[in-house]
Amino acid sequence: MNEPENTSILRVELGERGYDILIGEGLLAEAGRLMKPVLAQPRVVVVTDEVVAPLYLDTLCGALGDEGIDHGEIILPAGEATKDFDHFRKLTEGLLESKAERDTTLIALGGGVVGDITGFAAAVTLRGLPFIQIPTTLLAQVDSSVGGKTGINSSFGKNLIGAFHQPRLVLADLATLDTLARRELLAGYAEVVKYGLIDRSDFFSWLEKNGSRLLDGDSRCRRHAVLTSCDAKAAIVAADEREAGRRALLNLGHTFGHAFEAETGYGGELAHGEAVAIGMVMAFDLSVRLGLCPEKDAGRVRSHLAAVGLPTDLSALKTPSWTPQGLLAHMARDKKVKDGAMTFILAHGIGRAFITREAPEEDVRRLLQAALSKT
Amino acid sequence: MNEPENTSILRVELGERGYDILIGEGLLAEAGRLMKPVLAQPRVVVVTDEVVAPLYLDTLCGALGDEGIDHGEIILPAGEATKDFDHFRKLTEGLLESKAERDTTLIALGGGVVGDITGFAAAVTLRGLPFIQIPTTLLAQVDSSVGGKTGINSSFGKNLIGAFHQPRLVLADLATLDTLARRELLAGYAEVVKYGLIDRSDFFSWLEKNGSRLLDGDSRCRRHAVLTSCDAKAAIVAADEREAGRRALLNLGHTFGHAFEAETGYGGELAHGEAVAIGMVMAFDLSVRLGLCPEKDAGRVRSHLAAVGLPTDLSALKTPSWTPQGLLAHMARDKKVKDGAMTFILAHGIGRAFITREAPEEDVRRLLQAALSKT
Repeated sequence: MNEPENTSILRVELGERGYDILIGEGLLAEAGRLMKPVLAQPRVVVVTDEVVAPLYLDTLCGALGDEGIDHGEIILPAGEATKDFDHFRKLTEGLLESKAERDTTLIALGGGVVGDITGFAAAVTLRGLPFIQIPTTLLAQVDSSVGGKTGINSSFGKNLIGAFHQPRLVLADLATLDTLARRELLAGYAEVVKYGLIDRSDFFSWLEKNGSRLLDGDSRCRRHAVLTSCDAKAAIVAADEREAGRRALLNLGHTFGHAFEAETGYGGELAHGEAVAIGMVMAFDLSVRLGLCPEKDAGRVRSHLAAVGLPTDLSALKTPSWTPQGLLAHMARDKKVKDGAMTFILAHGIGRAFITREAPEEDVRRLLQAALSKT
Repeated sequence: MNEPENTSILRVELGERGYDILIGEGLLAEAGRLMKPVLAQPRVVVVTDEVVAPLYLDTLCGALGDEGIDHGEIILPAGEATKDFDHFRKLTEGLLESKAERDTTLIALGGGVVGDITGFAAAVTLRGLPFIQIPTTLLAQVDSSVGGKTGINSSFGKNLIGAFHQPRLVLADLATLDTLARRELLAGYAEVVKYGLIDRSDFFSWLEKNGSRLLDGDSRCRRHAVLTSCDAKAAIVAADEREAGRRALLNLGHTFGHAFEAETGYGGELAHGEAVAIGMVMAFDLSVRLGLCPEKDAGRVRSHLAAVGLPTDLSALKTPSWTPQGLLAHMARDKKVKDGAMTFILAHGIGRAFITREAPEEDVRRLLQAALSKT
């Protein structure tokens, strides 16, 4: 592939489902040329949302037109509420109405919501269409666009309906991060930190030094962080595509985080990345409480997240009705529950996360109680 | 596996997704013991419909209880209309409400509708649950329960939303065929004939001699027909699981058939198997018209289907508003359309079917015109 200058290519090794992640500035304007080699027919349907469309749809469609690629467009409402059955049905019907065929490629242009629902539509429309991710948020670039998890929410929780469906290509255009609000950038940054905490302590140290520059827009720092994050995730996904084991490490901070999101009703009060930031702090606190992790490491996690401006506890939230019992009930509904036992990702230290089903519920309850008493 | 006497075992060779099909009388009462080796946890949710539940649910649940297998039940309305988005959403929510976990196995007890929607729910709930098929109609035993195609209908056509998801086990209890109405048995028989027409001319000859005995309830004939049909389908599926090529042969009679079903609105006027029977006759007629197939073979197809009581033309249908153009439009919406060209399964003779995208549309139109002029 003839990539633009200053573009990094990362291969996700999944045999016949393997694909490239391209990371660089200005990829959107080159998208037609970059994706042409993986298109089975010169025809795509672009799925995006009402926030992203005015920013980037023209550039993308121009790039497709330059290469003679026929393209349809479907524009969804923005926000997590779009990831429901009704929008999913409308999306699949829109695809059928536009006469999508089995070789027509879907392009997800946007953040995690667009990527997840479009990927799921690609997985099941005509029993499977190819798709390409063009993530336009930091969260999507370092997390949701990599690894093939797709899905929608049910009334019982997030991402409970979905499929594993790998994209054919991911184009992460770093220039799209310039239009993100600081809060949205930070929410993605929480997932970047996660990779350092799971198994890359050197990267966490690098983030302690360079995180602020990255958030302030330094493009070399951004590229390094997105590349390292994708590399970390791709390595875990390649080892365990369907989450039979090791892949669960990627849920560090998420078991707690999902419970907080569920309590807030997935509204604007708490972004996913913010919930994960608090969840990671609690996972380290639980590890310390269980005598598994040095207190110093939990302190570094809390300090760094606070330093960049991410929440590290529940104090900013409206939690009068929250109870440890209610949060535990949400956690028990997680996909990772097996034979009734909850799975936790804990850590022996920074970069030394591990999976356990043996965290005593009583310790979890006390930790939640302590967290709620500070609010 | 310690199978009951007079039970045949057929292995579907799909590597790590491979599974056994057990064919015999009285398997339902042994179901708990037979499925135990493939259950990841001793917990299942049985999905069935309002027609099948009173006939077989108690027997199945008793067999599960005998082996200490915990079981939930979800009973759907009977009929093709159940295969829609609304019932699919309710089914997945029912599964989540019953606290299904990733190792909980779904059991589809019923005909093709129950098998298709349950298989699809298994494919996408928690991003994939194991499932077992217990088909109770001839159609489901010889066709829909084998091969891993699952799905629901959209307003644009049948089975347009779905996934490939292989069962862990298929239990085809021949005794359940005793409760089928003659018309339903015949609808399944059309698919049995199809396997002879695709690549087993000896089997078609056998059916010409034994078809009536089979339909009248001869259990040895039934076993032979179900076993041969599953074997024929399994061989094609093993060679091409995701329908990149050869698997399309299984659509013999279906391109025409689906168009007829779409025109009748999938009501009770025309059963799927009846549509396929007419469609197979038309596929052979088209082959003759194009000079590809001896007229004698098309004659044998028509004669045998008529002899057992299946329709071979549109004369019994209410078709005043049907036009060749309308039927062609339905056919053009088929999943198998590629670069705008329709795929047809034609035949050089009985047992010599082949896939083509080169049938001239004008010949298809004339054939449809001729068929409609007789109604």
